[in-house]
Amino acid sequence: MELKDRIRNIPDFPQKGVLFRDITTLLNDADGYEELIDRISEGLRELDIDIVVALEARGFTVGAAVAYAIHAGLVIARKPGKLPCEAISVNYGLEYGSDTLEMHTDAIKPGQRVAIIDDLLATGGTALAAVKLVERTGGNIVAIRFAVELSDLGGREALSEYDVDSVIVF
Amino acid sequence: MELKDRIRNIPDFPQKGVLFRDITTLLNDADGYEELIDRISEGLRELDIDIVVALEARGFTVGAAVAYAIHAGLVIARKPGKLPCEAISVNYGLEYGSDTLEMHTDAIKPGQRVAIIDDLLATGGTALAAVKLVERTGGNIVAIRFAVELSDLGGREALSEYDVDSVIVF
Repeated sequence: MELKDRIRNIPDFPQKGVLFRDITTLLNDADGYEELIDRISEGLRELDIDIVVALEARGFTVGAAVAYAIHAGLVIARKPGKLPCEAISVNYGLEYGSDTLEMHTDAIKPGQRVAIIDDLLATGGTALAAVKLVERTGGNIVAIRFAVELSDLGGREALSEYDVDSVIVF
Repeated sequence: MELKDRIRNIPDFPQKGVLFRDITTLLNDADGYEELIDRISEGLRELDIDIVVALEARGFTVGAAVAYAIHAGLVIARKPGKLPCEAISVNYGLEYGSDTLEMHTDAIKPGQRVAIIDDLLATGGTALAAVKLVERTGGNIVAIRFAVELSDLGGREALSEYDVDSVIVF
């Protein structure tokens, strides 16, 4: 079975007119989940990644396993107020509204090689917020990876300065 | 370095009088993160786990990598309103207030062997909510695992009917 066939399509979520691509049915499946993580990890191994930055919350489900698979450290970018220590913060627009992303100020050392990972590339707003956070720490963004990409929303163009790839493209 | 020494201690977070054990400094460290995931995974391999249930949101950072390491499916238990399909829901008390945990109704098949994984065992309230969710689906809970345990808060006693273990005990 193709990975794409393990994604569940949900009309009108989180709002009317949006077709939501639900990855939980892919994550639930041990073979599908392993293949997803392996496909992201294979291409990253040769890039000598020090740190995977995973974006809250679904991004953790992909980024954590990739960090483990490629022997990188895992840094979590979180919604406001969740991190216990001094954090840097970026506001950003996203497909349905706006939000803020935070990361611990000391989470990444200058020059560390970073892969940003999230479950979904839509407009690229969340990933661009993560880019800003990583660049403020002095980290070197060498890859941005997604499980799923909605190709008609322009996210890849918004991230065109970076090495971007995704496993499943709609 | 011991894993325990990679945990950062933060006084008065999220409220006065609480000493918060911050695992982000452990996750950030590739060697420490790998050792944490390996130590949880080793004991689970012989238990023939079909599904890892990881609890939002920090629990995803541990559970996702463990699911990948032991070739299990990953089921996410989430805060209310986050899951796009039909979900079951449990209210529970926790160390600082109360909350609700949800899981997709069809995420676990009856008889599947389940490990519940979270970052922290405090009073056990969140884990017990996850236990209820899994039992409602007919899943068979064979292990409950934590990265960190605060042993004076009674969580292990609250979960005494189950096979419970944690990597770092304070």
